[in-house]
Amino acid sequence: MHNGFAAPVTVVGLGPMGYALAEAFLAAGHPTTVWNRSAHKADPLVAEGAVRAATAAEALAASDLAVVCVADYAAMHAALDHCGTALSGKVLVNLCSGTPQEAREALTWATAHGAGYLDGAIMVPVEVIGTPSSVVFYSGAREPFDAHRNTLDALGGVPRYLGGDAGLAVLHNTALLGLMWATVNGFLHAAALVESGGVGVADFAETAVDWFLPSVTGEILRAEAARIDREEFPGDGGTLAMCLTAIEHIVRTSRDAGISDEVPSQLKALGDRAVAAGYGDENYMSLIKVLRVPSAATHR
Amino acid sequence: MHNGFAAPVTVVGLGPMGYALAEAFLAAGHPTTVWNRSAHKADPLVAEGAVRAATAAEALAASDLAVVCVADYAAMHAALDHCGTALSGKVLVNLCSGTPQEAREALTWATAHGAGYLDGAIMVPVEVIGTPSSVVFYSGAREPFDAHRNTLDALGGVPRYLGGDAGLAVLHNTALLGLMWATVNGFLHAAALVESGGVGVADFAETAVDWFLPSVTGEILRAEAARIDREEFPGDGGTLAMCLTAIEHIVRTSRDAGISDEVPSQLKALGDRAVAAGYGDENYMSLIKVLRVPSAATHR
Repeated sequence: MHNGFAAPVTVVGLGPMGYALAEAFLAAGHPTTVWNRSAHKADPLVAEGAVRAATAAEALAASDLAVVCVADYAAMHAALDHCGTALSGKVLVNLCSGTPQEAREALTWATAHGAGYLDGAIMVPVEVIGTPSSVVFYSGAREPFDAHRNTLDALGGVPRYLGGDAGLAVLHNTALLGLMWATVNGFLHAAALVESGGVGVADFAETAVDWFLPSVTGEILRAEAARIDREEFPGDGGTLAMCLTAIEHIVRTSRDAGISDEVPSQLKALGDRAVAAGYGDENYMSLIKVLRVPSAATHR
Repeated sequence: MHNGFAAPVTVVGLGPMGYALAEAFLAAGHPTTVWNRSAHKADPLVAEGAVRAATAAEALAASDLAVVCVADYAAMHAALDHCGTALSGKVLVNLCSGTPQEAREALTWATAHGAGYLDGAIMVPVEVIGTPSSVVFYSGAREPFDAHRNTLDALGGVPRYLGGDAGLAVLHNTALLGLMWATVNGFLHAAALVESGGVGVADFAETAVDWFLPSVTGEILRAEAARIDREEFPGDGGTLAMCLTAIEHIVRTSRDAGISDEVPSQLKALGDRAVAAGYGDENYMSLIKVLRVPSAATHR
């Protein structure tokens, strides 16, 4: 796939993910310069055609675009702060993990050094990078994203630009991971419950994952999302208080089955607070009004 | 669609759901007899061709199959206990809400009266009954299910028979509702988090519900379900302890964003217990081992 028209790119940081990014750029024919604190990590990439830079500044100088994939923001600053004027006129795409605030501060820092800045979040495992299933979120100024989008395409899938606030990529990443683990906890409780009736988890997953999550839960969330945006929480199709009665039933059924009631009891605790806040006659989604404000000290 | 070959069916209980069931049977051409404590509820059904029985016993006598859709098991017994020999030789399909234990006791009760018994759970809203999207779970003896399956087909979709334990339908229903609300809570926390960055919930749902839940979370659950059945929780692809570090990050990011950290803090509390139980070096799914046993008194 190598051709003369693929733009040069630099990769800073060759942990497992950075290494996969460099490989994907090489595979798509981009002249790829790499730098890592421990230089030997680049050996196999050099064998595949990458150029090893002696310093981070030299790596930045080699390409207009530098993708940074190090442990955290402190590691990024340790690698790049001393590069000084080598940053000027470059575009940095930072894919390390951090907070939205760290991403926003990094944008300010990069701007002060005359560099364009995009903050990104890699949403797939290492082995998916460079394949059509790959998903990477980007946020920050639109112009450098558009300018380098063809190069970022090499990481696979469709690069998703989320907006000008540099914190949006990591904010989405954090929000989605929370959704994932909440869903997994719900699944594991449900699995423990059906196990108590002698049902295998794989059999249950066929019902729960192949049908129920997309066709029931997904449909409800899709329909309610727009109503949440409009602050519409009508209780005429079922109230939060009614749902809590059903959740108490899940707690009791879990105890009867001899398993933990912790997951449904957590649902009940949050729902009770929403009822106490006056939302009992609205629909279940009105819970978001409790979640939009800092948690009461009482539950800490 | 009316024809002479559709088997007669009786519907006991004409609340909104029972009414929808009777309408679906009528629409599929089944001679339909109905009974309700308040007789006038049957008026529109009688206009559509249903037969109104004067008593529950008369309703049972009219068909080999009786579908019962009343508030709870106590209401079922109030309606049918005095029917005595009218139950003998009939098949009851009970679709009221209760616990697995109540379903098992109802099977014993029906058997003692010479009746076949299926316990069911309606998994869709009233308006979906009779359409191809309808889903109803059944459990109990296989023979009456097979004998009346053609009639039950009139309720729409594919009737799902879950096994001989009469408690399995309501057990699945309870498990899936718990999964649903855990997922919804995760979604609402995630939505509140992205709202703090100025992102609309409907926009977020396109990423979260259309892509992330099926393509990431769903894939993980599908892959791990079979490994849970084999008691395999290898930590080499990421440990529970590593996930907890990320969950703490969600807690901090929520606080920084000025929203509630309650949902991720609940995830953390459960994960901490699993680490304390010795599962920190296994994968996240090892949490199920904590959920399989009664909750510790400490968290009540």
